[in-house]
Amino acid sequence: MRILLTNDDGIYARGLAALYRELAKDAECLIVAPEIEQSAVGHAITIARPLMVRKARKNGHFLGYAVSGTPADCVKIGICELAGGAVDLVVSGINRGANVGINVLYSGTVSAATEAAIQGIPSMAISLDSHQEADFTPAARFARKMAAFILENPLPHVALNVNVPAVPENEIRGVVAAKQGRARLMESFDRRVDPRENAYYWLTGETRLSDNEDEDSDGSALRRGMITVTPIYYDLTRHDLLEGLKTWIRDRFPERS
Amino acid sequence: MRILLTNDDGIYARGLAALYRELAKDAECLIVAPEIEQSAVGHAITIARPLMVRKARKNGHFLGYAVSGTPADCVKIGICELAGGAVDLVVSGINRGANVGINVLYSGTVSAATEAAIQGIPSMAISLDSHQEADFTPAARFARKMAAFILENPLPHVALNVNVPAVPENEIRGVVAAKQGRARLMESFDRRVDPRENAYYWLTGETRLSDNEDEDSDGSALRRGMITVTPIYYDLTRHDLLEGLKTWIRDRFPERS
Repeated sequence: MRILLTNDDGIYARGLAALYRELAKDAECLIVAPEIEQSAVGHAITIARPLMVRKARKNGHFLGYAVSGTPADCVKIGICELAGGAVDLVVSGINRGANVGINVLYSGTVSAATEAAIQGIPSMAISLDSHQEADFTPAARFARKMAAFILENPLPHVALNVNVPAVPENEIRGVVAAKQGRARLMESFDRRVDPRENAYYWLTGETRLSDNEDEDSDGSALRRGMITVTPIYYDLTRHDLLEGLKTWIRDRFPERS
Repeated sequence: MRILLTNDDGIYARGLAALYRELAKDAECLIVAPEIEQSAVGHAITIARPLMVRKARKNGHFLGYAVSGTPADCVKIGICELAGGAVDLVVSGINRGANVGINVLYSGTVSAATEAAIQGIPSMAISLDSHQEADFTPAARFARKMAAFILENPLPHVALNVNVPAVPENEIRGVVAAKQGRARLMESFDRRVDPRENAYYWLTGETRLSDNEDEDSDGSALRRGMITVTPIYYDLTRHDLLEGLKTWIRDRFPERS
């Protein structure tokens, strides 16, 4: 079994190292990760510049390939060029900070897993619900169990988005499949003026669950101390609106005869 | 009526100018667009750096706000800070090149419209199926009709992804609501060696419709000469898999009592 590991916090991130330590117990693991942090890059890919690829070392040993691009770039070039054979699973993480609700769209971590799903390779993104220097070990141990689970029951075009509460392992209340909820960044901008009198703006604000957030959403379950597993996909169509829109458009814009 | 205009080709792009010319006939239009081209940035947002905002001018007149960020950044800061009042519609484009199928995930143009949908504002992305110096006028004229249509029938949390064939207006065969298809970049990497003997890679390859692409997908309909309108959304959950996954996980990871 060959697992490709990536993340969006960069190749030297502690969360990625914790993931590697656990997953390498069962499988050949290759790290292909961004040279520098790529948080909030979403599903960006690099087309206007080339990707520089460097063999990164740690304590004198080969650590993995550091790529001058995004998490989705890492998955593409990892699968196409660097893995040297078929990849059975792509795991992205462990991210510092949860990826739940609408914020999933901004997540480089999740987009790496989605990119694998596009390519037909089973995948998982895993995030720890803490921005502090938390312990990644429980999440990494769970990632190992999930990896085994996915390799036994592969879902080739689905990415599993996993979120783990930042609590000691014995306080995790369980594991649940959950839908993507409505948590999102309620943004504001902090306007400042530079020394040359030009305005500039820092994006700020906080991520909040929606007021009518469902009990069975990823954000709600995570807050209750559960590990959440959300099957995600790359079809953005609002299928429920399609028939209505077809009629609507046919009436407004009749087809040429 | 106030319309916020953005794009991913940059504030001086011809497609955006064509869009402005048509939409300004019916509504107050404000351009908030990237300072430089942002193709394939997907739903990236800028969190690690501030956004610089500059009043851009063209022929001595105020053109709009140029932002040192992504299309999604432009929508956020446009709505929050720059519009100076409620925005009724966000229109993103006109993109050079179609945005159909799975490639929609990489599209800055479409992500700008999705960002508006997240914020509850009706929106449309519009792309012209040509990378050449094509005529944007037919697409811009259609954008004006669609804008009127959306303002009469607002869908607050839906983005409409519109693709227009690059043919003379009288050769467009009609308008159809279509689902997101399976067209995607079949990528390869062109490996080169720099003057210092380091390897670097250009992403290359071409976008192809899937072999079993449905007749009613965006890519298929566009190829038949139709304008396509796809309702898109920001929920990535594979709802059809959720119940099965719940059972699966319950069996594998029993909840703590």
